[in-house]
Amino acid sequence: MRINGQHFETIWTDRNNKEKIKIIDQQKLPFKFEIKTLTTFDEAYNAIKEMTVRGAPLIGVTAAFGVYLAMLGKVNNEKLADFISLTCSKMKTARPTAVNLAWAVNYLESELQGVKSVVEARILSFNIAVKLKELEIEYSNAIGEHGLQLIEEISKQKKGTPVNILTHCNAGWLACIDWGTATAPVYKAHQKGIGVHVWVDETRPRNQGSKLTAYELAQEGVPHTVIPDNTGSHLMQHGMVDLVLVGSDRTTRTGDVCNKIGTYLKALAARDNNIPFYVALPSSSIDFKLSDGIKEIPIEQRDGDEVRFALGKEGKTQLVPSDSPVANYGFDVTPARLVSGLITERGICEANEEAIKKMFGK
Amino acid sequence: MRINGQHFETIWTDRNNKEKIKIIDQQKLPFKFEIKTLTTFDEAYNAIKEMTVRGAPLIGVTAAFGVYLAMLGKVNNEKLADFISLTCSKMKTARPTAVNLAWAVNYLESELQGVKSVVEARILSFNIAVKLKELEIEYSNAIGEHGLQLIEEISKQKKGTPVNILTHCNAGWLACIDWGTATAPVYKAHQKGIGVHVWVDETRPRNQGSKLTAYELAQEGVPHTVIPDNTGSHLMQHGMVDLVLVGSDRTTRTGDVCNKIGTYLKALAARDNNIPFYVALPSSSIDFKLSDGIKEIPIEQRDGDEVRFALGKEGKTQLVPSDSPVANYGFDVTPARLVSGLITERGICEANEEAIKKMFGK
Repeated sequence: MRINGQHFETIWTDRNNKEKIKIIDQQKLPFKFEIKTLTTFDEAYNAIKEMTVRGAPLIGVTAAFGVYLAMLGKVNNEKLADFISLTCSKMKTARPTAVNLAWAVNYLESELQGVKSVVEARILSFNIAVKLKELEIEYSNAIGEHGLQLIEEISKQKKGTPVNILTHCNAGWLACIDWGTATAPVYKAHQKGIGVHVWVDETRPRNQGSKLTAYELAQEGVPHTVIPDNTGSHLMQHGMVDLVLVGSDRTTRTGDVCNKIGTYLKALAARDNNIPFYVALPSSSIDFKLSDGIKEIPIEQRDGDEVRFALGKEGKTQLVPSDSPVANYGFDVTPARLVSGLITERGICEANEEAIKKMFGK
Repeated sequence: MRINGQHFETIWTDRNNKEKIKIIDQQKLPFKFEIKTLTTFDEAYNAIKEMTVRGAPLIGVTAAFGVYLAMLGKVNNEKLADFISLTCSKMKTARPTAVNLAWAVNYLESELQGVKSVVEARILSFNIAVKLKELEIEYSNAIGEHGLQLIEEISKQKKGTPVNILTHCNAGWLACIDWGTATAPVYKAHQKGIGVHVWVDETRPRNQGSKLTAYELAQEGVPHTVIPDNTGSHLMQHGMVDLVLVGSDRTTRTGDVCNKIGTYLKALAARDNNIPFYVALPSSSIDFKLSDGIKEIPIEQRDGDEVRFALGKEGKTQLVPSDSPVANYGFDVTPARLVSGLITERGICEANEEAIKKMFGK
């Protein structure tokens, strides 16, 4: 999508040197637009860990490029197999919740099985990382087309008055490579001239809504309004929301949806007000091994300073007395029963084991 | 309750000069403790409007003292009746949602009916303001005793392991005169040696939870943890909340509860996880004229800058891009069906018309 009118993806290879991987520094947005260069495994690992890049699909692709960067380092053909295995294991520890990270790294690792030389490993890992990137773009694009139908339908019912969509956190193109997951249908609708307006949850404590989603919607000219996370249910109660659209960091084969902390609250509010609650996600976010999201998905606990301080344009400011403890859970799990449907690259399906199995044949 | 070990109420008369009303500047807490002096109607009006004082019961009492301060100004006996009427009407416009404001002012106005001289009006309005203040302390104290029983019961069921209570916004002593509403049972339990731990919602956009509730709990030595507003439902899902206790700015005679924006979300989460959701409120917060809270209670919309910026110890910092619109609804309404009970000064009753009528005989 566009930044200041120019097309960008969230990760790309330097035009003149494919050993340099470029990313947008998402910690600096929306007040500064800065491009960073990754040249080593550690730089890629830390970019994920410190959330310079974030969002489940983008984390997966960055991890793949990170493994590729590791292959460019000092390693000989004899120790290659062990090195690949160690590198992949390490990369998967960068963040615990989004399954795309493990999915991308496992896929890359399996493709590297039996590779005999470092040169071959370099070429293959680069090609796979690029392929995973292209795949995520394809997925987002397809999610956009499928989700567009939902918006078109509501728009018809509302006789063309703007469709009000509430979203939480950033499941936008900045979380992916392009288009986004939850935002993809919104961008498609907007480009088609269908009236949309997005309620953007600010998404404390890191404010990915007010900082990233608002920014990317503004850059694309999509009408939107930023609201505190407390506000959504009030809007729903007063008929001001037609559709809730969120992303997912990991969804079980039974349809339980792990996403940014606070998502479950919005699902409850949507149910209480008979508003459709859809989750947009590529199949790389589905963990086919898990059946009980609440019990089985590890929830990242992050540094309490994210809660204790607000970080904005002018810097940090303290919000909590120094002697009061804080807790900072990164994600929560919305039970499948509250999910109206999953918008995937293959189409829209119900959030249950049978429907997911039918759609993905697993 | 205590600040730095010394007992305070939220509003009091200067020991040597009862024409000076003292308040704690709640905009400066928790990082600065400052006492302000009100000597005119305008100062009292602005203290309410700008939230130097806040919280439904405290707003009511401050309004009464504000009307008293008006009586100290230039007015003659001939124009007194009109002056009282105008003053009271003006005061009621300071903030729209909390009904205690109108309740206190209407009560004072009715008591001033038929007063013949300015001198008499001064004496009477002062006495009524003091009486309303004493009444709110009595109410909070009684709410504390009634609510204590709920906590004691859960504590017994948990065999003395700490009772985890979630609260939203500040319904503490800082919102009242002393004890608080939602916090009154907590303080009573803590003083009785019953183990309690409070999950404090930070309560964006003004952070009354992290700034005021955390502060007053810390000052009283009550164990607590500050969490983003997004977190409560995750904690409930994992058995980490035993009871939700909130206050109310206005409750209808049918039991619909208007409180700080975001309360409704927590009520939904409590219901979904079978956790009791109680509202602690003095009868001065009940609007006996209203039957449908969602349709009838006016919801204050506040300055968008409260959302656009975070205001902390080091000052303001911008969180939302300058070209993104924001919305800032101050309150929401939790339907009576989600409320386990109302803890009032007369006891605990169900949140429905019959039970409220039975308790208050109206």
